[in-house]
Amino acid sequence: MNYIFTNILGTFILDEKLTIVDSLLFKSLEEYKSKAAEAKLQQKHNSKPLPKEKLLQTLLLFKDAKYYHDFYQKNLELTKDGLKHAVNEDNMIMQAIANINELDKIANTMSKRLREWYSLYYPELSEKIENHEKYVELVLEQERNPETFGADLSESDIEEMKLLAGRIISLYALRKQHELYLEKIMSKYCPNMLELAGATIAARLIELGKGLKHLALLPASTVQLLGAEKALFRHLKTGSRSPKYGVIINHPLIQNAPRDKKGKAARMLADKLSLCARLDYFKGEFKAPDYRKELEGKLQ
Amino acid sequence: MNYIFTNILGTFILDEKLTIVDSLLFKSLEEYKSKAAEAKLQQKHNSKPLPKEKLLQTLLLFKDAKYYHDFYQKNLELTKDGLKHAVNEDNMIMQAIANINELDKIANTMSKRLREWYSLYYPELSEKIENHEKYVELVLEQERNPETFGADLSESDIEEMKLLAGRIISLYALRKQHELYLEKIMSKYCPNMLELAGATIAARLIELGKGLKHLALLPASTVQLLGAEKALFRHLKTGSRSPKYGVIINHPLIQNAPRDKKGKAARMLADKLSLCARLDYFKGEFKAPDYRKELEGKLQ
Repeated sequence: MNYIFTNILGTFILDEKLTIVDSLLFKSLEEYKSKAAEAKLQQKHNSKPLPKEKLLQTLLLFKDAKYYHDFYQKNLELTKDGLKHAVNEDNMIMQAIANINELDKIANTMSKRLREWYSLYYPELSEKIENHEKYVELVLEQERNPETFGADLSESDIEEMKLLAGRIISLYALRKQHELYLEKIMSKYCPNMLELAGATIAARLIELGKGLKHLALLPASTVQLLGAEKALFRHLKTGSRSPKYGVIINHPLIQNAPRDKKGKAARMLADKLSLCARLDYFKGEFKAPDYRKELEGKLQ
Repeated sequence: MNYIFTNILGTFILDEKLTIVDSLLFKSLEEYKSKAAEAKLQQKHNSKPLPKEKLLQTLLLFKDAKYYHDFYQKNLELTKDGLKHAVNEDNMIMQAIANINELDKIANTMSKRLREWYSLYYPELSEKIENHEKYVELVLEQERNPETFGADLSESDIEEMKLLAGRIISLYALRKQHELYLEKIMSKYCPNMLELAGATIAARLIELGKGLKHLALLPASTVQLLGAEKALFRHLKTGSRSPKYGVIINHPLIQNAPRDKKGKAARMLADKLSLCARLDYFKGEFKAPDYRKELEGKLQ
């Protein structure tokens, strides 16, 4: 009775004494991944799988110089291959949305600094314009009012502030570019999520759910609260009010719902988003537009 | 006997019944600031300063429509003038150094994000290069090694990361520009501080000291600890070891001192920096190069 044994190098037939009596060596990772060689040798030799207690002894065969180099190389190749295929759309989505969140904070910090600095020169502008991005644009584009209470500073002082404003503008632009990039990936990878939640919220859900697969397996009630973990744990610990929504709070359907219906809107939206995640993960139909209409109808 | 009274509109001579009998109106803020009109009318009329108990009644004269508009306008002008002159080099230095500190943190955050993201594509580069700025440059300039363990990503994925890298580079450049700007201001405003401490440390001291004037009035022992307030209060509260230095810790003379002499070096440097602040504030000589030589000699 022979044993059959497969490793990264090939499929081997061993006799009772664990001597190699036949083998088929793999020429590529694909041959290793397909089970063709095993089936072939199995057919040729009447053999059974190597029992566990003989495994160590068998492995020692491959410490032989004849196999060792190849063994090492092929394993390296396999690892590389595994790593290459471990990176997918989830990773790109998570990195992009994480950077969007950081850019929001950064643009905010830098805009506040610019307001403080530029207000020495033109304080009225900051009072008039609340929106940071608009403010930064006006610093670059608008002459100051000659009636200003601000100090007359030198060209080189103003120049320094305008350089800062230019950098902030380019960070806002990068944030927008990241959103387009997300939309591009998601329109193929998770079109239903994209359609119903929009790029930013959908990406945040995938980030918080640790990937589309995992998100698809979560119950809708968890999807509803993704991003509200802090409030949820506080609720469990101290009995404070339980949170009604996580990152989906920014969705227009919840934003526009009357106050006493926000909780209901969040539950209904989370139900549909959960379905979207499943449709996308299992490559199902494009049903999000119907879901959207249904929700809009019920929440009106 | 007449009274003499000056406000923003002019100098007035009033009789016993507080009727205006003579006046010199100001044409500019400069005339208000000089006391010429007062001296002139004083010479012409034998008058004494308006006693306090008559002030309210006198002020009511100026509620008259004849004066009110001018009174309001001139006061506005005076306030504006005060505000304009309240902004000086201290403000520019404080804003620029505050922004440098923020940019350091921001470039750090963004570089870490880039490392995480780009490492999905080329992990070996991040392992090899520790310095953030150098790393970001290489992301833009260097092709990846074909032997990499990283995943093969699409052009649009890489493009997104390179856009991020470009923004980080431009923030590093802005930081350098701010340093040049600081040097330019300080070479006139506080050349001694600049020479002995360098732009960044000198600016941090002026920021922490709330301006050059205030810094010049601080004892050297306080200058030594500026920036170490947290450790100092902990020391006072809990009896932990007292801090030896604040922001001057980054000065080469302290960095290069042997460990057991760092405290002494900090004390000596702070003494000289305190002298520099005073020389600069009172527009004294340029002695910093001598101080530097003296310190280098003693600390060798």
